[in-house]
Order: sequence, then structure tokens, then C-alpha cells
Amino acid sequence: MSDTTRRGGRAGRAGRSAGKGPIAQKPFRQPRRRFPATDIVSADALEAIHAASLTILEEIGMDFLNSEAREICRQAGATVDGLRVRFDRALIEQTIRTCPAEFTLHARNPAHNVRLGGDWVAFAQMASAPNCSDLDGGRRPGSHVDYQNLLRLGQSFNILHLTAGYPVEPVDLHASTRHLDCLSDFVTLTDKAFHLYSLGTARVQDGIEIARIGRGIDDAQLEREPSVMSVINSSSPLRLDDPMLQGIIEMSRRNQLIVMTPFTLAGAMAPVTIIGALAQQNAEALAGIAFTQLVRPGAPVMYGGFTSNVDMKSGAPAFGTPEYMKAALVGGQLARRYHIPYRTSNVCAANTVDAQAAYESVFSLWATTMGGGNLVKHAAGWLEGGLTCSFEKTILDVDLLQMVAEFLDPLVVDDETLGLEAVREVGPGGHYFGAAHTQARYADAFYAPILSDWRNFESWQEAGSPTAMQKANRVWKDVLAAYEPPPLDAAIAEELAAFVARRKSEGGMKVDF
Amino acid sequence: MSDTTRRGGRAGRAGRSAGKGPIAQKPFRQPRRRFPATDIVSADALEAIHAASLTILEEIGMDFLNSEAREICRQAGATVDGLRVRFDRALIEQTIRTCPAEFTLHARNPAHNVRLGGDWVAFAQMASAPNCSDLDGGRRPGSHVDYQNLLRLGQSFNILHLTAGYPVEPVDLHASTRHLDCLSDFVTLTDKAFHLYSLGTARVQDGIEIARIGRGIDDAQLEREPSVMSVINSSSPLRLDDPMLQGIIEMSRRNQLIVMTPFTLAGAMAPVTIIGALAQQNAEALAGIAFTQLVRPGAPVMYGGFTSNVDMKSGAPAFGTPEYMKAALVGGQLARRYHIPYRTSNVCAANTVDAQAAYESVFSLWATTMGGGNLVKHAAGWLEGGLTCSFEKTILDVDLLQMVAEFLDPLVVDDETLGLEAVREVGPGGHYFGAAHTQARYADAFYAPILSDWRNFESWQEAGSPTAMQKANRVWKDVLAAYEPPPLDAAIAEELAAFVARRKSEGGMKVDF
Repeated sequence: MSDTTRRGGRAGRAGRSAGKGPIAQKPFRQPRRRFPATDIVSADALEAIHAASLTILEEIGMDFLNSEAREICRQAGATVDGLRVRFDRALIEQTIRTCPAEFTLHARNPAHNVRLGGDWVAFAQMASAPNCSDLDGGRRPGSHVDYQNLLRLGQSFNILHLTAGYPVEPVDLHASTRHLDCLSDFVTLTDKAFHLYSLGTARVQDGIEIARIGRGIDDAQLEREPSVMSVINSSSPLRLDDPMLQGIIEMSRRNQLIVMTPFTLAGAMAPVTIIGALAQQNAEALAGIAFTQLVRPGAPVMYGGFTSNVDMKSGAPAFGTPEYMKAALVGGQLARRYHIPYRTSNVCAANTVDAQAAYESVFSLWATTMGGGNLVKHAAGWLEGGLTCSFEKTILDVDLLQMVAEFLDPLVVDDETLGLEAVREVGPGGHYFGAAHTQARYADAFYAPILSDWRNFESWQEAGSPTAMQKANRVWKDVLAAYEPPPLDAAIAEELAAFVARRKSEGGMKVDF
Repeated sequence: MSDTTRRGGRAGRAGRSAGKGPIAQKPFRQPRRRFPATDIVSADALEAIHAASLTILEEIGMDFLNSEAREICRQAGATVDGLRVRFDRALIEQTIRTCPAEFTLHARNPAHNVRLGGDWVAFAQMASAPNCSDLDGGRRPGSHVDYQNLLRLGQSFNILHLTAGYPVEPVDLHASTRHLDCLSDFVTLTDKAFHLYSLGTARVQDGIEIARIGRGIDDAQLEREPSVMSVINSSSPLRLDDPMLQGIIEMSRRNQLIVMTPFTLAGAMAPVTIIGALAQQNAEALAGIAFTQLVRPGAPVMYGGFTSNVDMKSGAPAFGTPEYMKAALVGGQLARRYHIPYRTSNVCAANTVDAQAAYESVFSLWATTMGGGNLVKHAAGWLEGGLTCSFEKTILDVDLLQMVAEFLDPLVVDDETLGLEAVREVGPGGHYFGAAHTQARYADAFYAPILSDWRNFESWQEAGSPTAMQKANRVWKDVLAAYEPPPLDAAIAEELAAFVARRKSEGGMKVDF
């Protein structure tokens, strides 16, 4: 309760600056889902999926491609045979009991801390696209300029609560030091919580250090207050690669957030049935989640669901499909069964910002919202199954996310909102435009969308029949032009620059090319 | 149960011809929502809305612009004062108890009967647009040719379970006899259940007679088996016009279906607060529903929700907004409270088939589906807040509806779908493309969308970067080219033609112009 109160206060403070900028937006505030999430399979069916996943871990097991990780598992009672690790059911069920049901991920601006778990919802900008695109520049491999501009957009929109990876991969930065530039950009261009990639122990350590410097705190406080996250993908089926396991070891040991997300595309890396893919997803998720708790009981961890189907003609992943929706909803049921916060995504397979992009995204958001997603990754910008981050799609998604947040904002039922006096005043056959009840409320009674064109057909046609994509193009340019970097303490900026310079002078990371 | 069994049999028979035509589609079958509908307001809040609506009917009342209707109300115990009718709370609550919770609307092809109520879902083609549009012909006032072509599309898609009005108004047919041509087209071009407009007693009688002739049954069977529907809109606020009341009297007296739908746009014809608009919606709906039961206890009736917000800049209606979603969900809660089947809509305000059309429509379907909508009107074709029925939007919506139906299709959890044998066969690090479990299922494992373009960016670009709208244009032309009229008994066709000829020779309906 005190936490809620404090958060309200922070949102209030953040809200004072929310009027600035070229678009009207509400203050930074996480939505909460005040109604029950939807259970689309029965309790019995859910137990059958749970039981099947424990059978997979017990009888088939997973390959853990890191010897330290295997040793941790062995000591905890797992059976290790070469790379293969088998967990008996009781070991998994007992180990995951220490997972926290709800926690805070700290940002360098405390007004932008995010609460994960329970009925809290957080939206994170798209991550990890190799390409980006906009109407003017077309589709291109990511660059540092595009990377920074996308971060600036992410910072500018209050509905984007954190950054959960590089929105686009800046391939013009050398891979040996790219993480240093990208992570320090998170601190200087944004003041929201962020993510580091689990690409080996040293990079993870660099990222944790940059998070610590950005917040201006010491190691002990960092360990008390999770301040950076990393997504761990299993290499489905049933394998955790070396860098991923190094990431869990380093992050969980220091009490930082792991988001354990199997990449179980039904028919490719998982059984062709959605239920089979979910059983495998659950096995891989539970193994990774249990491993975080073996490293450090109580370390913050999320259950990530990413199961979808593939186009059986081409093998390409499909997103925002009926199968994706069902998988996202059942994933939520599983996460709630374990009382572990749930990560989902706002994804599509469209190549451009057309009707397909919109319907696949809203179907994703439908499942994500009703399924109790606590963290929605890839919430803004995602196109082409993740191959491109689009500037225009970013604006479309911001609009969609704001609509979802409005939808989640509870309806207040009281004498004021019931408005019987207005009904009496207007009476049969009248209209409400001039009623006192309307006049007092009309200015902000309803959500004002960024992109929706509500002009009548004739006015819209006279204006050149603009589409949502064209309007989105203008909006992101305006927002970028109005961007101002968030305040950063000079001493922190100096310490950050010195750290990056030192690590660069040490040569960064070894790379193979 | 026997009804379910019979329906399964019918679906099976209908299914045999489902493979024909230019697009793959599943047999005619109504989806069922197997999970609980979402309650977004508390039971207390719902009672407050219910109570406010009864206060409106008790203290303010409604204008009933038909003397026979007022007399029916007066005899039942309502207070009549000029045009104004006031119902005390107990009268409303007692009168609506006879509403049936679930019933069948009969089509001339019994395989196309629709079940309304409970967890059944039925999708109806768009209705009542003054204009239509397609990519080739542009936007134009409706004609008889367009009307007939839209009916042919409605008949061709199994996901469209009934026709709930004229998809476009054929303004080239004279108003005095338009209903005779349009209603006989329903019987000859389709074999699904249909709708008549409540535009005066004589037109309603003509429509009921055409439904009877189409089914080849006598008046007694028609009265036992509701075979035609009519939507009644109140002239919000708080007025029921003369033709609407004539419609209820004629339809309910003969046990045909009334869908009682107030047109309560918040800020225009209803209070600017969604809760206030819902209280007024509920008052108007309950008054109309109660009136059907005063005419004939047990007559089939649906609770229609159409509350949305307006653009406060222009006064134009907005659809598929967060406010629309909330209103649709609370409307469902109210309908369930009264155990009356619920009618909703798939609506948008977009001017063209772009991202906006898609997101507003999917937001509408989200609320409609999770809110327990039993009949979704305007499910395919709707653009511009209802001013245009688009041939391309029809195809987009058919795709969306098919996806919703797939989403509602329950996940089966058993050994086959859990697929542990496949997981064992593939093991860590493998892939499932060649697994026996995959090979046995891949062909129809997933929904194959009509419009979604899942090619990679390069292939899509080489193909000319087609949008969903361009593909939709090709699809409706193919479907129309493949259309064949459903079989019609020669004696019925003859009786229908004779009836229409006779009524035309009598001069049809008097009109004012």
C-alpha cells in the first residue's frame, strides 16, 4: 500500500512535465488490470500441461552448454549426463517456490521505476531488430544514428515504461565495444529502466556496472534494488547456450532481473500443436527459472511466453494469429499458477504499416492484456516478425498502447458519472451537446487518438486521403525534433564516460571477426 | 443436447459443399465462447447502473410515439401522460422475466439456423449503409446491383451466419416497393436468416410473409419458429418512434425476433460519461424489451448495446475506441444480469481500409468477444461509422471473423496434442519440421489467413509491395465470380414471385415523395 502511494506521488511529479512536446499525452503511469485475466483452458487441462512439462524435464532433460551451470544443477540434485541435465519433478516444484511474485525494476529516474507482477502492466519499446525503416529513408540495416533516434522516441512517450533491448542493432558500431556505446546511450538519452544482452560474462558485468553508475548507487544498493534486466532465450528445443547461462549466473547472483523466454515456434522448434509447444515452452521456462533460483533464491525472474505458429508453406514465423493468442493466454495461466510475473509481446508479421500490421498487433495486445501480461516487450515499433523496427509503426503502437491503457483505466460509477441530472435536464428528444454535465467534461472526456482520422469522407478526401502511416511519419519527426535529454547529474555523466573510455581502451570484448 | 446434436449434423451437411469456391473456408458453424465473459465493473457498480436506469424510467419516463403502444403500457400498469410513459421499477423487473434466455432464429436452409443466447456467437453482414465502395468503382450511393452483389458475398462466406439488414441501401429502387425487391432477394440469393426494417406495419407484414413463404411453412409454424428479425433503435434520448413501436407490436405479436438497440452516443444523445450513457442505454433497452413482453410474453428479444463516444471536436461518432470497448463489455454484463441474449457490433470510423480500419475493428471484436456478444451486427464491410459498406473491408472482416472463430475454438489437451512422443523423437537441439507428429498435422494445423502476407520483405517487395486492400480486391471478385445461388424449391420461388407481383400491383407502400 505504501508502495502504491509512493508510486502515485512519483507519477504526479513525472506528470508535471507531461504537457510538453508536440503530442498530448498522459503522465508516466503503469496501467493495472483490475478485472480477472481470462482462463481459456480448464484447471485440469492446465495441470496436464504442467505435468507434461515436468515429464519432459525429468525424462528427456535439457542441454546446458556451460559447465558451471551444470555443476550448480548437479549440486542441487539434478542428474547430469554429459551436457544433459535432468530435473525430477519435486526439484523443479520446490526450487521455483522462492521466485518473487512481484518486484520493482529500478530506473535512474525513480519516477520511471516499473512494478512487475500482480495486476501491473509495463510496455517496453521493440528490441533487437537488425533493420529499421521509415517512409523517407526506406528499410536499412540499423545504425548508431537510428539507434539513438529510436531511444529518443522511447524516452519521449510516457506509455513506453522501459527499454528492453536495442530497438535496432547499430551495426556500424564495432561489435567489440558496441555494448559500451549502446548501454551508455541508455543512461544519457533516457532515464527509464533498461536491458543488457547476455552475450558473455564480461559484457553482462559491464552492463550491470553502467546501470549502477547511472543510478549513482553502490553495489550493495544495486543488489537490493534490481536495476537492469536481461532476456534469456532458450535455443529451443531444450537447450540453454553458454552465453545465456553465463548471463543468468551473473545477473541472478547480483539479484538483477532475468526474463526467461523460450522461443518455441510450433512446428519448427516445438511440436506442431499449440498445446505441445506450450508444454515444451513450460519445460524450458521452468528449467531456466529454477536455475535462477539455484543461483540465488529470491532473485527476480519473469516467465516469458513467445509461442506462436509458423507459416507451414515457408517456415516463417507468424504472429498475432489465433494460435498466438491462445498460446499467450495459456502462458499467462501457467505463469499465474506459479505466481511468477508474466512477459508477453506485441508482435506481427506484416511487411509494412498496413491493415495487417494493425490487426496482428491488436490481436497480440488482446491476448497479452486479457492473459495478464505484466511486461509487454516489443510493444512499439515491431514489423516483419522482428526483422525491422519501423519509426511509423512506433507511433501506431504508441497510439494502440495508449488505447489499451485507457481501456484498462477503471470506470468510476458514482452519481457524477451516472449523470441522472443531465438526463433530467435534457429529457426525451433533446441532445446533450449543451448540457452542463457535458460542458464540464467534454474537453477530456474521451481518449484523443494520435492517428485515427475521424473527419468525414469528403473532408478526408479533400485533404488528400491520408493514411495512418503518413500521419505517423509526421508525428515521429515532430516528437524527435522536440526531444530533450533527461537531466543527468554531471558527476554521473563523468563517471560513465570514464568507465566507457577505460573499457574501450582495454579493447572491449574479443570477437571472432 | 438434442439441439446441439442436430446442429452438428446440419453443420456436417453444410460442410460437404464448403470446399467449393475460390477460398478455403471451414463449414458453416457458429463459434461458442467456452470461457467466462469478462466483467469489467463490480457487481455493486452494475447494480448502480441498473438502479439508475430504473430511476430514469420511473421518474423521467420515455416518449412512446404510438397510441396503441401507450395503451398497452397503460393497461399493464405504466403511467401515461401525453406521449410520456413512466414504468415503475417493479413493473419493468417483473415484465422482462418472460424473455427467453436462448432461442433459434430459423433460416430457409435449416443448416443455417442460428442459435442466439448462452455462449453462442453469430456474425451478421454489415447493414444499412447509404454508400458502398470498392477499389475500382470508388465510393458511390448504393444501387440494386451493389446490394445484390453484397448479398452474394454474404451468402458465400460461411463465417457470416445471417444477414441483418440491407448491406447497402439500393436507392435506385423506388421506396414504395424497395422492401419487396430487397426481401425477396434475401430469399432467392441467400438461404440464411434475415432481417426486415420496421418502417411501418404493412412493410413488416410483407417481410414476415416473405419469410414464411421462403421457408415453405404455415403461419402456425412461423409463430412457433422465429424466422425473421428486426432491429429497433430508440431515438435517443428516451423516445421510441411510431414505426419502431409498430414494428415491435407486429413482430412480437407473431413471435418474431426484436433486437432492441438504443443509439446512445455519449456526449450527443446520451450523457458524456460512458457510465451515464450506459444508464440511459439500459433504460431505453429495458423499456423496449419490456414492451415486447407486454405484447407477447416469451417473444424472442435481444439486448442491443451500441454506446460509443463522439469526436468532441466535430460531433462525429467514434467507434472501436477504448470508450466503445468499455461500453460493450458493461453492456454484456447488463444483458447477462437479465439473462437476455446480447447484440454488439464490429464497427470503425475509418474512411479507407488502412491500419485505422483494422485496429478499430479488432478493438471492437475484442470487446464484443470478451463481453459475450451473441449476435455481432455489422460484422463485415463497415466503414466510415456506417456510411459506407466496402467490398474490400468485407473481405478483411471475413478474415478477422474467421480468426476470432479460430481463437474461440477450444484447445484440446490430450496425449495427442501434448505430443511428448514428438519431443522425445526430436530431443534437445533438433527441429520438428520432419517429425512424424508434424507431418501428420501440418497441412491444417494452423489458420491460413486470406489476406495476411507472410512472405519475407524481399519477396513481398519484388511482388510490388501489395497491401491487404489490394489482395482483398482480388478476393471479392473471385468469390463473386464463383457464386452460385442456393437451391430454391420451384413452388416457393413461384409463390414468392406471385406475392411480390401482387403487392407491387397494389402499389406498394405510400411514400411522401
